[in-house]
Amino acid sequence: MEVVKNGGQEIEAPKNITIKGILGLLMANTDANGDGKKVISLGMGDPTAYSCFYTTSAAQEAVVDALRSAKFNGYSPTVGLPQTRKALAGYLSRDLPYKLAPDDVYVTAGCTQAIEIALSIITRPGANILLPRPGFPIYGLCAAFRHLEARYFDLLPGKGWQVDLSAVENLADHNTVAMVIINPGNPCGSVYTYQHLKEIAETAKRLGIVLIADEVYGHLAFGANPFVPMGVFGYLTPVLTLGSMSKRWLVPGWRLGWLVTNDPDGSLKSPKFVERLKKYCDICGGPATFIQAAVPAVIEGTQEAFFHKTINILKQNSYTCYQKIKEIHCISCPHKPEGSMALMVKLNVSLLKDISDDLDFCFKLAKEESVIILPGVAVGLKNWLRITFAVDPSALGEALERMKAFCQRHSS
Amino acid sequence: MEVVKNGGQEIEAPKNITIKGILGLLMANTDANGDGKKVISLGMGDPTAYSCFYTTSAAQEAVVDALRSAKFNGYSPTVGLPQTRKALAGYLSRDLPYKLAPDDVYVTAGCTQAIEIALSIITRPGANILLPRPGFPIYGLCAAFRHLEARYFDLLPGKGWQVDLSAVENLADHNTVAMVIINPGNPCGSVYTYQHLKEIAETAKRLGIVLIADEVYGHLAFGANPFVPMGVFGYLTPVLTLGSMSKRWLVPGWRLGWLVTNDPDGSLKSPKFVERLKKYCDICGGPATFIQAAVPAVIEGTQEAFFHKTINILKQNSYTCYQKIKEIHCISCPHKPEGSMALMVKLNVSLLKDISDDLDFCFKLAKEESVIILPGVAVGLKNWLRITFAVDPSALGEALERMKAFCQRHSS
Repeated sequence: MEVVKNGGQEIEAPKNITIKGILGLLMANTDANGDGKKVISLGMGDPTAYSCFYTTSAAQEAVVDALRSAKFNGYSPTVGLPQTRKALAGYLSRDLPYKLAPDDVYVTAGCTQAIEIALSIITRPGANILLPRPGFPIYGLCAAFRHLEARYFDLLPGKGWQVDLSAVENLADHNTVAMVIINPGNPCGSVYTYQHLKEIAETAKRLGIVLIADEVYGHLAFGANPFVPMGVFGYLTPVLTLGSMSKRWLVPGWRLGWLVTNDPDGSLKSPKFVERLKKYCDICGGPATFIQAAVPAVIEGTQEAFFHKTINILKQNSYTCYQKIKEIHCISCPHKPEGSMALMVKLNVSLLKDISDDLDFCFKLAKEESVIILPGVAVGLKNWLRITFAVDPSALGEALERMKAFCQRHSS
Repeated sequence: MEVVKNGGQEIEAPKNITIKGILGLLMANTDANGDGKKVISLGMGDPTAYSCFYTTSAAQEAVVDALRSAKFNGYSPTVGLPQTRKALAGYLSRDLPYKLAPDDVYVTAGCTQAIEIALSIITRPGANILLPRPGFPIYGLCAAFRHLEARYFDLLPGKGWQVDLSAVENLADHNTVAMVIINPGNPCGSVYTYQHLKEIAETAKRLGIVLIADEVYGHLAFGANPFVPMGVFGYLTPVLTLGSMSKRWLVPGWRLGWLVTNDPDGSLKSPKFVERLKKYCDICGGPATFIQAAVPAVIEGTQEAFFHKTINILKQNSYTCYQKIKEIHCISCPHKPEGSMALMVKLNVSLLKDISDDLDFCFKLAKEESVIILPGVAVGLKNWLRITFAVDPSALGEALERMKAFCQRHSS
């Protein structure tokens, strides 16, 4: 029976590593440890396991109201409910020098689906896309499924994880269709300056490519640089902005995201592109209609105090993390985090007697200390580690203490 | 700026007609009509606009409870929550001669996403898929986006819309990877017998292809034939079953669907296929976690009386529709509907003086009578019409009366 093997050609998954795949293996590895330590995960960007990261009741009750209204059990237009597109256009326009129209906004099932749509609509036979390293592995996986060649440019740890723009210019050719910028940065915790974002946009303009701006951590900035949306530079080059309510509202499980064409006069408004985008939305299962219907009330009803509380915890946690890392001799953090929910640290294996690499480090840490962190190889950087600090402050402190003890024990 | 035109090759949408596209144009066409008739749509398979098709409060409150529990705002595994997979496996196993395992169930954002996943994971360069005509146009659109060649086999109106199996055998070649069967049938309202389903499975087995069984209308059968899931024949040939809560629970906007591998011993269980499927789920935005979390309580808490009420209205409506059609001389229904929410009627344009085809019929009907029905060309059959009867009984009667008057007025 030729099913997964057809015409002599096996149907396989791309070889890409996924974060969830590695974290699952690490989690399974903690079971072997019998000393009863509670598992603490600094591995995933999902803070909702901790009560200090609970969404506002205004948001929750807006969804309850929409559901109970009995008006939103039916299909929505596949591009999103008109009122949802309008509310998101208004919300996102607050930070732009021009007004987005509701038609610029496509409502998606989380930022994950926005990524999938963006990559699928820009691809064509032979195309390539420029991705940041370190970066978010879903891009590479999605590109592989879409037969879109991924080419990686470096983010520079010594320069606040800025984009190596000369590398970008060298990588690009006439088959390059887009580059991805994640700001605030996952996994690096960086927040780019207005000036650097402008340089990126100018580079994209020179190369004639679309900028895909992943702003899923939008507004989660707590350092010197304010969050500037890439859409500000939409007049220079077409920008597809991807985002969601997941991180700012602490509801990743609601699967409410968006893809926005930030391109005041450009080609992303062409009838052919819009038709392709709309038809692509037709084959996607979007977010639940009643959750979409709640969005206007969620945006309007959320107090600034709610956002401030989250930012303050993240800021304090990132500081705790950054200071504690200084006490651990075999790891170092090249850049103090300024945003998002994670940072990257460099692992110096030469200071450890029996650890071969980042993967080995993480597996032994999981086994011996029941602490989960992500090996850098999962985000494209071998012998680095990604630490998520969007956890309860006491759990964070405890996990870092265990990590310190682990490193001391394995010190050469 | 080469964006939508890149390397000389324009990025376009597939040419496929979409139901929503046509219905939108028809709806816009009703505005021209000034005599104040209320618009009645028999165009879409979304009954939720009518209060007689309201979901059970047990389902609604299960979702409210899951949301308010504060436990399900985070990410779920991309294949679905374990408890949701388990509950769906149990629910679907009720009608099977074997037990599904929770791992056989992948939770999707509605049946639409299940279609997208199914077609994406089975495709490979040069592959083709066999689709029913008439059928659900999302299949053709999705295949086009995935560079999967669509080949159409006829459903036979004179034989209860059964599959023309000899046509299937003639269409298939060594590049054929799958065939799609929609049962209960959209757009035909057919419900296949056990015997016919078995013949289909035997044909698929001979051809060595996967059966994609679209059972989004599962259990919505009200004629002589009971609903038999294709998974019953999973021992003959691998079956990917697609479904959702949308139709049976009257909640298409909740976007809670599934893809199930009904393949007790076969190749859909191979580690490589499962890995590909799981990784594909990683790039999809699935359904909301709290809606998934409610599924066990929704299944357990729904009374049979709720299902019976829906079935009874659909049965009565289909009868009203079938009888009324007999009074309209220019259309005829070759097969009394037995399930789902729609039927197909043949349009005899030679009996009309100024109607050129089905599209012309629908546009003039929308303009003159503010009644929306779907031209057959949208589901692959020119000069047929699809009538959805999942509407309020009084609205259905009124719409059919207007349609009768329209046909009399345009009679030659």
